[in-house]
Parts: sequence; C-alpha cells; structure tokens
Amino acid sequence: MNTDTLSGQMIVREAEPLNIEMSFRTLDSLITPSERFFVRCHFPIPEIDVKTWRLKIEGSVEKPLALSYTELRQMESRTLTATLECAGNSRASLTPQPKGTSWELGAVGNAEWTGVPLAAVLERAEMKASAVHVIFTGSDQGEIAEPPRPAGEIQYSRSVPCDKALKDVLLAYQMNGEELTPAHGFPVRVIVPGWYGMASVKWLERIIVSDTPFTGYFQTIDYAFWDRRDGLPERVPITEMRIKAEIARPHIGEVVPAATAYRMHGAAWSGDAHIMTVDISDDAGATWHAARLLGSFMPNAWQLWEHTWQTPAQPGRRTLMARATDSCGHAQPSQHDDDCGSYLVNHCLPIEVEVR
Amino acid sequence: MNTDTLSGQMIVREAEPLNIEMSFRTLDSLITPSERFFVRCHFPIPEIDVKTWRLKIEGSVEKPLALSYTELRQMESRTLTATLECAGNSRASLTPQPKGTSWELGAVGNAEWTGVPLAAVLERAEMKASAVHVIFTGSDQGEIAEPPRPAGEIQYSRSVPCDKALKDVLLAYQMNGEELTPAHGFPVRVIVPGWYGMASVKWLERIIVSDTPFTGYFQTIDYAFWDRRDGLPERVPITEMRIKAEIARPHIGEVVPAATAYRMHGAAWSGDAHIMTVDISDDAGATWHAARLLGSFMPNAWQLWEHTWQTPAQPGRRTLMARATDSCGHAQPSQHDDDCGSYLVNHCLPIEVEVR
Repeated sequence: MNTDTLSGQMIVREAEPLNIEMSFRTLDSLITPSERFFVRCHFPIPEIDVKTWRLKIEGSVEKPLALSYTELRQMESRTLTATLECAGNSRASLTPQPKGTSWELGAVGNAEWTGVPLAAVLERAEMKASAVHVIFTGSDQGEIAEPPRPAGEIQYSRSVPCDKALKDVLLAYQMNGEELTPAHGFPVRVIVPGWYGMASVKWLERIIVSDTPFTGYFQTIDYAFWDRRDGLPERVPITEMRIKAEIARPHIGEVVPAATAYRMHGAAWSGDAHIMTVDISDDAGATWHAARLLGSFMPNAWQLWEHTWQTPAQPGRRTLMARATDSCGHAQPSQHDDDCGSYLVNHCLPIEVEVR
Repeated sequence: MNTDTLSGQMIVREAEPLNIEMSFRTLDSLITPSERFFVRCHFPIPEIDVKTWRLKIEGSVEKPLALSYTELRQMESRTLTATLECAGNSRASLTPQPKGTSWELGAVGNAEWTGVPLAAVLERAEMKASAVHVIFTGSDQGEIAEPPRPAGEIQYSRSVPCDKALKDVLLAYQMNGEELTPAHGFPVRVIVPGWYGMASVKWLERIIVSDTPFTGYFQTIDYAFWDRRDGLPERVPITEMRIKAEIARPHIGEVVPAATAYRMHGAAWSGDAHIMTVDISDDAGATWHAARLLGSFMPNAWQLWEHTWQTPAQPGRRTLMARATDSCGHAQPSQHDDDCGSYLVNHCLPIEVEVR
C-alpha cells in the first residue's frame, strides 16, 4: 500500500497496524504539526478509558504507585522540543530491499512535548539504590510472527538505564499543546530525548524499575544491532539517534530548471549533540559546499538548513547529497553499516534529480 | 538426508557442515564411544596445524598468553566424565516441525574428557578482579543466513560467567583417552560440565576475559530462550542442561511381544544435579512405575536405568514414557515450553510401540 492522504502530506505504509510517514518534501516548519507526524505501530492501537487508566510504578521502589490520569496531570509539568526518528527511517534506500516497513525520508518529526519528568515520578515512588534500568510497558500487544519469538501475545516494552531515566525522560500527555491522539499514545507516552523513536513507548501503563538490564524482544531481537568488540559482533540495543541530514527539496526525481538559483532545504539532527555543519554536494559526493543553518540551536530538536544551489547550465541527471557533522565530532558515513541490518540508515542518501 | 552409517549406529542429519547423531536405540554403555558421539557443526570443520596453533588468552588479564599445544600438554591435566546434550536434541518430536537440524534422541553422549582446568590457565594469565565473563572463540567460521545476523563471516563464540569458568570448565585435548578427532574439536575443545553442548566450544583458539557479559550471536539470537519476569519475556542464553530421561529400547515403532517381560532401558541426566528417580509409563502417562537406576552416581554424567516391562496380553499400540526427577527437586514437564522455541526439549517424550 502506498496511498497518499492529507493532500499528499502523509504516506500510508500499512493500514493495520497503522504505519504512516510524512511526505518529507512537504517539510515547511521547525515544529511538525501533529497530524503530519509519522505514526509507527507494532500492534493495533489500544482503546484506553482514561477514567480507569492507571500508571503503575513498581519493581525496585520503596513505594509502588498507581497514578490516575488526574494525579499525573496535577504534578508539575515541563515542555520540551524533541525530534523522534524511527530507527528504520530511510530503510527504502537500502539495496536489496530488506524486510520491514519501507520508510522513505518521513519517519521523523520534531514536536513539543508536555508532561511530567520521569525523575519526579521515580522520586515519588522512592526508587531503590540497586536500580539499574527502568522498563516501560505499553498497552499495545500482539503476537510476533517470526522466530525467535516469545509464545503468545506480548506487550510492547523498552528500557532505559537509570542515568538517562533521571536526566531528561518525560511522561508526555500533550503534543504540540494538545492532548495526545490515540495514534500518538493517548493518554501518556514516554519521550526519550535524543533516542530513536522505539524508546518513546506509547500508551504507557507500567513502569518497572529493575536491578538488572532488560533483554526484552524489542531490544534484543528487534531494534538492536551488531557492535564489534575485538572483532566479535555483540547484540546491542539501539539507543541514541545517529547524525543525519535529510534533503526535503528537491525530492527524488524532481525536475529542476537549468542555470538557476534553487533553494535546497532540509533538516539535520544527532542524538544528544548539536549540528555544527551541513554540506551539500551536487555531484554525488565529489565536491561539497556549506549550507546555512537556520535559527538557533535547540537541544534534542532538529536543525533546519538551506542552501542556494546554482543549478548547472547543462541538462541531465544530478545526484544531490547532504552531509552533517555535530559538536561531538560525528560525521555521516558514506555507506550503510550492514551490522545495523535495516536500522540506523544514516549514510549520505543520494537524491537524484533531473536538470532540464 | 537420513542415511545410516556405522552399521546403523549413526544418523547423518547434514553432511556439510557435518551433523550426525547416535541412533539412540543402540545405547549399550555408560561411556559413549567417540565414533558414536554426536557431532554438531555450525560451519565447516577447520583444518588446524598443531605446530603453529596457539591458544590466546587475552582481555582482562595481567599477562596475556599464547600457549602452544606442547605447553598446554605440559600443564597438569585432569580427567572428568561429562554428558553433553545438544540444546536442540529431540527437536524432531515437536509439532509443527520447526526449522533447524531435526535431531531425534541421539544428539547426546557421555564421554571421558582429559585436559587442563580453565582455572589453571586463567591463574597463569592473572585474570583481573574486574572480570565477569570468559569468552571462548573457535576457529570455525562462516556466514549466518537469516537476519538478524552480523555482516560477513563470524567465528563461533560462547561465554561462561567467571564463577563457572573457575569451578569446573576443562580445556580438553583428549576424549575417551585418545586425541580429539577433527570433528570433535582437535586440537582443543572446551568442556562446560552440566551445560548444553553449545557452550563446549570446539577448535578453541582464543579465550577473552571480559568485564561485561557477552552478547554474541550464539547466546542472543541462537541458543537463547525466553524467560519471564513479571510476565515480560526476556531473552536469556541457554546454559545448564534441563532434566531429561530418554528411552533407548523399545524404540519408536518397535514390535514388542505380548505378555512377556521386556527389558526397557535408557539414560537420564540433569545439569549439575543427580538423578533421583526415573519412572516409566506404558499408558501415555496415566500410571507410572519406578525404574532401576544402574551403577553409582557420577557428577555431570548421565545415569543409565532399566525397567522390566510386563507387556500386556492384548495386542495393540502402546505409548511409553520415561520421567525423571533430580536432587534439586526438578521434574520433567509434560509439555514443551514454547518460550524455548525449538530448544530445551525435555518434556516426557512419547514412544509408541506395537504389542503383538
């Protein structure tokens, strides 16, 4: 399925469970409107009655809690802007085409999230000193089709280490100033700033504080990659977003006038670091030119950029690329790392256009 | 492929890489002769020149070592008897038939192993106090076909926690009093007593002492199962052998004379514990009768048993079962646990025979 909706601004990758991405060529603002923010579902969207909903906090805590929605809303709130990218975004650019939802460029968005800092809830529950990980469980559940898989239905679950949990994780009930919609995790979703979207568990119903790291399905079999130690590959959960720049315009296959000044633009982001440079190539990476960064740096939010491209006088095909560097010294690789499977696709993505 | 070799005593499951099992109905001794001991290979058997072979010990050690075969043979040796069962043994009894080598009852054997205690080698290398796991890497290597898989060729690797490493792990160079054959891991294989065979790495070439647990392919994706914590399945490496009794005779489909005294026999084993009882049913588990345990208890070795079965006067089909209990209070389950996938098949296996 590949049906455009919302006047071509969203692309439906799968209807059941719902998986839709923004048409990235329509990027036109720092904040992604909620109705244009990608939706990634593993299972059917759960129907939740907020009157009976409780957020359970249990495990290695002195005072297990079961917070009602009203109680959570009464706690001190915080608003932050955070970019979430699906760990499988841009999978469609891999050859041969791997299994999994075939995301192009739009499984990424940048929104304002309002909610209660996880640290405040953990403080109220009196987290024990022995704790090392905090596990989030959503109400969404279903069966995994392919082995190795647990028997029966499982709930979507993910964990973060305690230092991250206490630093900046948010239990969000608002997105861009309005209640979360069911597709975005109503009534409450986790926001893990700087991490790929799979960590920001939607439809949150249970927080389990754990004295050992968690090795659930969605961080060992799925949403994990191979990291090398002494040459030996080890299975490691996907966490922080890797540095990446994406070109919104021109889009793949766009026809661009020859010998003109064309405004190229897009966004770039990188986990906890901030974007230092974005460079543009119009010859498949042979030469590079600095793009302008727009606006000021916001932690955990993407950085918009633009570049005035003097298009060539000669008609023909051109391969455009964008390449970012960040404040931690990261740069985008030129090739996809096969140890990441069909995740963490952050190499310089070629955008082929026609100059006419 | 299902070709009998060695006069029907071995069954070839796969020729390349070599995977053969004992025809369990031929069980006739406490010690399994080496040529009737099952062979499990993941990759082609490596050709190793013992003159240039070195065993490297590295990682969290004060004195990294590279021991020659001669040096290893000069160290004080120890001999122990240990049963090794392939973690996928009896997979053929599962319905529907899962992927993977279709082992029946014979991917298990009991042998005498001679070699150097791993503890002595770790002492010589001066293992650091920060160490938590010891990783073994074999010379066998190849590509994994199915994702999630690391890129390129990988070497077979497995780890044990340090307490197990220091307790009773052996670096074996002899099996049943003779040099290891290439199929059994020449020049040196690890023996991890009480654990499934996948831990006893063959063609050992490297020991890496690690300050973190190891999450290699063969203990996260393969040779792992789902353990439940608060209802949440977690991926856990397969380690100790679970309690199990197998019937050697009669075999599936055997024709047994009516109204006679038939000598049933077989073997039973259980990780670190010793077998307390074996019970036999001739009515698919409705009623049970105690079998006799043969010989005395040997740590980590299987326990042979026999039972005089008064076969019924009425002809017809009968379903036989054996069920063991051990000194730690374990008993065999009646059903396979689907969270174990196609591994740890230790439920009471039905043996259907015909009384005539």
